[in-house]
Amino acid sequence: MKRTKIKDILNTTDFGQEINIQGWVRTFRNNQFIAINDGSSINNVQVVVDFLNTDDALLKRVTTGAAVSVTGTLVESLGKGQRVELKVKTLEILGDSDPEKYPLQPKKHSLEFLREIAHLRFRTTTFNAVFKIRHALAFAIHKFFNDKGFVYMHTPIITGSDAEGAGEMFRVSTIDFDKVPRNDDGTVNYKEDFFGKSTNLTVSGQLEGELAAMAFGEIYTFGPTFRAENSNTTRHLAEFWMIEPEMAFCNLQDNMDMAEELLKYVVRYALDHCGDELEFLSTRLLEEEKQKPANDRSELDLVTKLNFCLDNDFVRITYTEAIEILKNSKPNQKKQFKYLIDEWGADLQSEHERFLVEKHFKKPVILTDYPADIKSFYMRQNEPDETGRRTVAAMDILFPGIGEIVGGSQREERLDKLEQRMYEMHIPVEEMSWFLDTRRFGSAPHAGFGLGFERLVLFVTGMTNIRDVIAFPRTPNNAEF
Amino acid sequence: MKRTKIKDILNTTDFGQEINIQGWVRTFRNNQFIAINDGSSINNVQVVVDFLNTDDALLKRVTTGAAVSVTGTLVESLGKGQRVELKVKTLEILGDSDPEKYPLQPKKHSLEFLREIAHLRFRTTTFNAVFKIRHALAFAIHKFFNDKGFVYMHTPIITGSDAEGAGEMFRVSTIDFDKVPRNDDGTVNYKEDFFGKSTNLTVSGQLEGELAAMAFGEIYTFGPTFRAENSNTTRHLAEFWMIEPEMAFCNLQDNMDMAEELLKYVVRYALDHCGDELEFLSTRLLEEEKQKPANDRSELDLVTKLNFCLDNDFVRITYTEAIEILKNSKPNQKKQFKYLIDEWGADLQSEHERFLVEKHFKKPVILTDYPADIKSFYMRQNEPDETGRRTVAAMDILFPGIGEIVGGSQREERLDKLEQRMYEMHIPVEEMSWFLDTRRFGSAPHAGFGLGFERLVLFVTGMTNIRDVIAFPRTPNNAEF
Repeated sequence: MKRTKIKDILNTTDFGQEINIQGWVRTFRNNQFIAINDGSSINNVQVVVDFLNTDDALLKRVTTGAAVSVTGTLVESLGKGQRVELKVKTLEILGDSDPEKYPLQPKKHSLEFLREIAHLRFRTTTFNAVFKIRHALAFAIHKFFNDKGFVYMHTPIITGSDAEGAGEMFRVSTIDFDKVPRNDDGTVNYKEDFFGKSTNLTVSGQLEGELAAMAFGEIYTFGPTFRAENSNTTRHLAEFWMIEPEMAFCNLQDNMDMAEELLKYVVRYALDHCGDELEFLSTRLLEEEKQKPANDRSELDLVTKLNFCLDNDFVRITYTEAIEILKNSKPNQKKQFKYLIDEWGADLQSEHERFLVEKHFKKPVILTDYPADIKSFYMRQNEPDETGRRTVAAMDILFPGIGEIVGGSQREERLDKLEQRMYEMHIPVEEMSWFLDTRRFGSAPHAGFGLGFERLVLFVTGMTNIRDVIAFPRTPNNAEF
Repeated sequence: MKRTKIKDILNTTDFGQEINIQGWVRTFRNNQFIAINDGSSINNVQVVVDFLNTDDALLKRVTTGAAVSVTGTLVESLGKGQRVELKVKTLEILGDSDPEKYPLQPKKHSLEFLREIAHLRFRTTTFNAVFKIRHALAFAIHKFFNDKGFVYMHTPIITGSDAEGAGEMFRVSTIDFDKVPRNDDGTVNYKEDFFGKSTNLTVSGQLEGELAAMAFGEIYTFGPTFRAENSNTTRHLAEFWMIEPEMAFCNLQDNMDMAEELLKYVVRYALDHCGDELEFLSTRLLEEEKQKPANDRSELDLVTKLNFCLDNDFVRITYTEAIEILKNSKPNQKKQFKYLIDEWGADLQSEHERFLVEKHFKKPVILTDYPADIKSFYMRQNEPDETGRRTVAAMDILFPGIGEIVGGSQREERLDKLEQRMYEMHIPVEEMSWFLDTRRFGSAPHAGFGLGFERLVLFVTGMTNIRDVIAFPRTPNNAEF
C-alpha cells in the first residue's frame, strides 16, 4: 500500500478508509496512543493501538524517535486536540530508537543544546516550523522574480576578482601547504594553483549581476556568499545566502519600490502558506519572552508584527535627516548610546538603527543618500549639497529586531566618475576592465540591492540567533557536519 | 513616462498608444530602422526614425550596443517580420557604444570568441535564449518540488567532512601561505585556521540531505558543488550546480519514478514556456550540424528530441543486462570501443553509455544495480546473486548526447551493513558518527539522486559545450570575471 502523508489526512473527513502512514514516534501514552510525525506537517497524527491484542515486545519498541509503518482505518477522533486518528491494523517498526541513547526526548530542549545536535534538531517541532518557513520564503522569492520576468543568474562562487572590498575573504586553493610553489622573488606562484591565479570565495554576486542586467534588463541572484570575519554574534555567519536583484533602466526610487514590494510579498506569502508554523513560533516566542524583564519584551506578537510590516509604508528618510533625529534623541543627549552621534559622516551602528526603527518611527525605515566615504565605490554619486558634502544614491532598509536587512544603491553608470572614484579608493581599475565595459558600451542607469536571506528568515520566524535559521551554521571555529 | 518592456508590446494590437522603451541597439538600417532589444525577449522591436527631421549628430550615435530611450507611438508594421513598430517622437542616447571598439558587431561570432568575452555574450540572441531557458529550468525544478511538499535545504558549501570520496576537493582556508602554523610534529596546525579544522568546498549535499530527509520526509537541495579535477572536457566544470532530492520511506523503484517524473516535468515546462528560445536554438543547431559530416549529424532536431524524451518511458535495465548487450555489440566485437567490455565488473565509459542510449535503445536509459565495488559506500547492498556477485541498489540515468545526467541510489539504512562497508572502504567511521545517527535512531528505507543542472541545460538547449550554459565557467586555469 502506498503511504499517505500525514499532512493530507489531518483535515480529512473521509473516514473509514484504510491507509498506510510512515513516520517517527513523537510520544507514546498509556500504551495506547502514539503520536506520529512524518515531517510533512508540524502536526502529528494520533494512532490508536489495540494494546490488549498486540505483542508486548513490539509495544516496547515504540519509543520516541523510532521509525514506524502503520496501516489502519481513519476514524473520527473522540479525544481532544485532533479531528482524526488512525485505528491500527498492523504496526511495524522500521528503525528502533534506544531511549537510553536518543538525545531528543519529549521535553523542552534549549536552543543551545539543539545547536550541538544540528543533525537531529530538524526533528523538533520548532525546527520543522523554522525550515518550512525558510523553504516557503525561498520559493516565494523565486516566484516573485519569475512572475516579473527577472532572469535567475548563478554568479560564480569561486572568484578571481578581489576588488569588491565587501569584507575579508576565504582563499580557495589546491596548493599543498607543504609544497608551496614560489616565484624567484619568494612570493607564492599562483600560476601553479588550480585556476592559475589566486582565487577566493565570493562576497557578493553584484558585479557579475550588473553584467547580466545590462543584457537581460532584470536579473537576480540567490546563492551562497562568504565572509571570513571573526564575528561571533547572533547576526553573523561566515557562510550565508543572499538575494541580489539588479535592474537596468532603474533609479534609486524604483529600487526602493522594488525592495519594499519584495519584502511585503514574501512576508504575505509566509502568512498565507505557513499559518500553523507561524502560530506555533508565535506562541513559542511569547513563552520565551516571559523569561525577559518586562521592558525588554516585544510589544507585538510575531504574527501581529508581520502584519504590521505589511500594513505600513516603510519610512523613507535621508541619512542627513537620520543624523539630525539621532543627534537630538534622548539616548544621545543622555549619553546612553555607546557611540554618540555628534557629526555628519559618522557610520551608523546597530544601536542607532534600532533606535530609529524600534523607538522613533516604530516601522521599517529606508535610509538613503549616505556619505560617499562610508559606502562602496560603485554607488552613484549625488551632486554635492550646498555645504559641499558628498553623498551617494545608496539605500539601506532597517527592520525591527534585525537592523539592516537590505543594502542597495543606484550604480554609478558614468564611466569617468566611476573610474575617478576607483582611483580614489585604490580599486585596481585595470583588473576590473570587464566590469567597466558595461559603462563603455551602452551604459544606462541601473540599480540593485542585496537581501540577506537568513536575516529575512530571522525576522519572519521570530528566532533570535541566526544559527537557528540555517541548517548547519558556519562560524569561527565551527564547521561541523 | 514609465518604460514598457519590449516583451509586452511585440504581440499587442493596441495601436496608437504612446509608450517609452529603453534598450540596446542591435542594428540600424537605412538611417531609419532601429532594432532594439531590452533583454525581456529574444526578439527585437523595430523603431522607425523620421531621419529627415532628426539631428544627424544624434543619428550617428545610434550604433550597435548603444543604450537608448525611445518614446513614440505604437503602430501596425507594414514591413515583413514584425507585427508592430514604434514611430519615434523622441530619441535619447543613454550610453554610447563606439563601433570601433565594441566587440559584438552584428555578424556571426564563434562560441569560442564569445567565451572570451563572457561578460558581454549575454547580449547575443543565442545566449539570451540559453540563459532564459536556464532560468526556466531552475524555476521549474523549484516549482516541481514545492508543489510536492519537498523542503528546499541549503546544505553547507564549506564542509569539514572529507569522507565522501566523490572527487578531489578545493581547500578553503584563511591561513597565510607565508605563515603556515605548525604542530610539534611539523604537520599543519589547522586549529589556527578559521574553522579550527581543515575545510573544503562541498562535492555533494547528499549526506546532510539525508539528515534532513529523516526529519522532513522529503527534501531537495539546489546549490553549487565543486570538483578540483583537472578535466578539460566539454562536459566538466570545477564549479557546477546540482539538485539533490532525498526521500524517506522510498526505495529504488520510487526513486527512479521520481527522477523520470522530474526530468519530464522540466522538459515539458521548457517547451511550454520557452517556445521562441527553443525554436531559435533549434535552427541554430541545424545550421551548426550542417558543418558536420552527414554521419555525425543528429537524427532529430532539438524540439523533436525534447518531445521524444517526453513521449517515451525511459528504458530500465540492470548493469548486468547492459554488460551482456555491450559484450555482444558490434563495436565491442569489432574492437571499435576504446575500452573493450569483456567482463562483469567493468566501469562503463562514456562510449558505452552513448552506445546504449543513442544506438541500441535510442531512448533515455536507467541502469540499475551496479557492482558494489564501483559505487559509493552509502548505497544499499543487494542480496548477492546466485554467483555471489555483490551489487548495490544504484541507478544512473543516461541521456542522448549527455551521458549520465542523474546518479542515485537507495541508501543503506541498516547500521551494521553500512558500518561494515565503511570499514571495507576505509571511510572514517568515527568522524561520520553524525551521519550514522540517522541509522541509529529511527532508521528507515530512503533514497535519493543527484541531477547535474548544467548537463540538464545542455540537453534542453542543444548546446554542446558545458561552458556555454553557465554564466562564468570555472575550469582548470580559468576563473575570469
